[in-house]
Amino acid sequence: MPAPQIDPPARLLMGPGPVNADPRVLRAMSAQLTGQYDPFMTATMTETQQLYREVFRTENDATVLVDGTSRAGIEAAIVSLVAPGERVLVPRFGRFGHLLVEIAERAGAEVHTIDVPWGQVFAPEQIEAAVREVRPALVAVVHGDTSTTVAQPLADLGPICREYGALLYSDTTASLGGNDFRTDEWGLDAVTAGLQKCLGGPSGSAPITLSPRAVEVVRARSRVEAGLRDPADSDGARGTERIRSNYFDLGMILDYWGPARLNHHTEATTMLYGARECARVLLQEGLDVAVERHRLHGEAMLAGLQGLGLTPFGDLAHRMTNIVAVEIPEGVVGDDVRGELLADYGLEIGTSFGPLHGRVWRIGVMGVNARRDTVLTTLAVLEQVLRRHGVAVPPSGGVDAALASYGSA
Amino acid sequence: MPAPQIDPPARLLMGPGPVNADPRVLRAMSAQLTGQYDPFMTATMTETQQLYREVFRTENDATVLVDGTSRAGIEAAIVSLVAPGERVLVPRFGRFGHLLVEIAERAGAEVHTIDVPWGQVFAPEQIEAAVREVRPALVAVVHGDTSTTVAQPLADLGPICREYGALLYSDTTASLGGNDFRTDEWGLDAVTAGLQKCLGGPSGSAPITLSPRAVEVVRARSRVEAGLRDPADSDGARGTERIRSNYFDLGMILDYWGPARLNHHTEATTMLYGARECARVLLQEGLDVAVERHRLHGEAMLAGLQGLGLTPFGDLAHRMTNIVAVEIPEGVVGDDVRGELLADYGLEIGTSFGPLHGRVWRIGVMGVNARRDTVLTTLAVLEQVLRRHGVAVPPSGGVDAALASYGSA
Repeated sequence: MPAPQIDPPARLLMGPGPVNADPRVLRAMSAQLTGQYDPFMTATMTETQQLYREVFRTENDATVLVDGTSRAGIEAAIVSLVAPGERVLVPRFGRFGHLLVEIAERAGAEVHTIDVPWGQVFAPEQIEAAVREVRPALVAVVHGDTSTTVAQPLADLGPICREYGALLYSDTTASLGGNDFRTDEWGLDAVTAGLQKCLGGPSGSAPITLSPRAVEVVRARSRVEAGLRDPADSDGARGTERIRSNYFDLGMILDYWGPARLNHHTEATTMLYGARECARVLLQEGLDVAVERHRLHGEAMLAGLQGLGLTPFGDLAHRMTNIVAVEIPEGVVGDDVRGELLADYGLEIGTSFGPLHGRVWRIGVMGVNARRDTVLTTLAVLEQVLRRHGVAVPPSGGVDAALASYGSA
Repeated sequence: MPAPQIDPPARLLMGPGPVNADPRVLRAMSAQLTGQYDPFMTATMTETQQLYREVFRTENDATVLVDGTSRAGIEAAIVSLVAPGERVLVPRFGRFGHLLVEIAERAGAEVHTIDVPWGQVFAPEQIEAAVREVRPALVAVVHGDTSTTVAQPLADLGPICREYGALLYSDTTASLGGNDFRTDEWGLDAVTAGLQKCLGGPSGSAPITLSPRAVEVVRARSRVEAGLRDPADSDGARGTERIRSNYFDLGMILDYWGPARLNHHTEATTMLYGARECARVLLQEGLDVAVERHRLHGEAMLAGLQGLGLTPFGDLAHRMTNIVAVEIPEGVVGDDVRGELLADYGLEIGTSFGPLHGRVWRIGVMGVNARRDTVLTTLAVLEQVLRRHGVAVPPSGGVDAALASYGSA
């Protein structure tokens, strides 16, 4: 008895992502393949590069996709930009800062960290002081960290890094498309993303952009790499400049996407189609319009959750537009509520990691799910389940507050 | 003016792959997402593991997907199984042997190679002699190398590697599903694949299976890794046991797919759906039936190409079922013929790499394109284009020979 056709249950995904994919993206992904060097294929790659330049707000020629999840994009950026033994500074304000540290350590970097408590962000002076002291080759910082739902302001960091000769890298997987983000204006040298949050696609493709300064670093290491091709010379010891990964060698990936079209991996065509459609529908809506839509519905969700008597977590002044964390009420088992939401209503909300597991729920309002009906439905359903779990929730307190936030109370 | 909807031209992809995706696979990939820890999602992951155990013909518990192209699977296998400074033996008989060398070198391995001319394979004694001399930790060998269209027999290599304490790893991206392959019976410790050849899907997901011996090696290195988490100890120098990649750390990937479900990457859900459907339709047909189908239509294509007066390249006794290489006739510019096939007939055939570029064409008969109508159409069209390029082709020589091969002349 062979397995049946895939038939996922209907879910409304209001967690920290992945969220429901935009149906237009899924339809684009059912388009048939062409050959890897078909003129249509190479034109589609080139077109996708231009779409992501607009999404990243950059003029960077070096704007491509890494074929893997957003974590693949992070590893490609770090392993290509940092030679073993070089210093990396990671200002850490949530779970994904820990991931940057882990990846940089594996790349052989000498990793330095500074920390603020989860839920807060850094003042630029704190980061500047650390850069001055550590003198890193790279500052790697998450933009919006879904684990805490706050976004680190980046606009001041570009000039700081430039002054001290460091490259500035940020991962925007959780924020891009739903929060204001400006690669060139803010002076970023490398930015990575994923499709599964505000971009409304599935995980599996990682858009990335590199400034000319970053490309220079990658190219310098590629030159050394070529010289090391003699097997007698194949030493991987610390201090050499060799890029340690073939798959994540951004020099080779750029040569595959660029005019040289040098064979590297076999481009994941269906993910390319999906990534292209994510950018296309976002730009069709307009970047500023999409950010404002996330802000509007995120605000309504926040107001609604407060209207249900729940307490927001984290620094609200630096809240990401697209996700809200609230404290789990005293005496309630958070995962029981989540289980009931899923089983009885097909509604998913998130838990969190590490110090926040069991302490907060995370409710996402992003991508195609950043809508009025999803916000109101989530609040209506959550009211039912909270009440069943013994929480004294004001009748319609969530929906009324959200409607007031929309100006239609 | 926003970019238009994706709208690929109709192509019949009869090259070395990617080939046309099975429409059932593309449809499965348009299914909506669920959360990463939704019971449906974890059940689908578990089910997909079992489907690939059957495809790989293995009992290995450690059978999962790596989220990336087939090259990602290769890098995950090598970087997880080989510590810096350890010896790797690569018997090299085509382009993808060079890729294994390149990836192993970047992983810091001491790489040893043996070579046969392109188009030939190794006798087991040649490999045994090299294993005896080199005493590698890992023997890494491609199964079917599309660059030369021959497949290395592997059945004798398992016992040889076991005798000398080496792990045996093979990449089957180009062969799996269309050529006989037996992970357990042949004694393989690690096998990787991709979807874009005989499995009839798009590139972007890499099935992988590891024997218990291979898992032990990965786990031993994971234990060291855990102990290295202290930043003061983050040395990546040669000789340490640390797995150099987070994304490709198979220990972490196994913990994500296994009962522990430890968070790692965000599974590429749509690629998972596609990989699952590839295996499902293959097993529904039956593995042996599918291999026989590839053999039947590959034979007919070979006969037809000979009927057009073309000379096959490579050792026919070890030909892969799913691809045929033929020498480009004297005086013909191979890429001009390919260009005309694509422009006038929407038909793609392949060129080759390195020493074979401009010398052979490669014609694939694989996945959903291993059919009678695709074989006959390709031969009919090729006859037209060859004649226009001045080659004296016997009228209907290709189609007649293919029909004879089918027993219906």
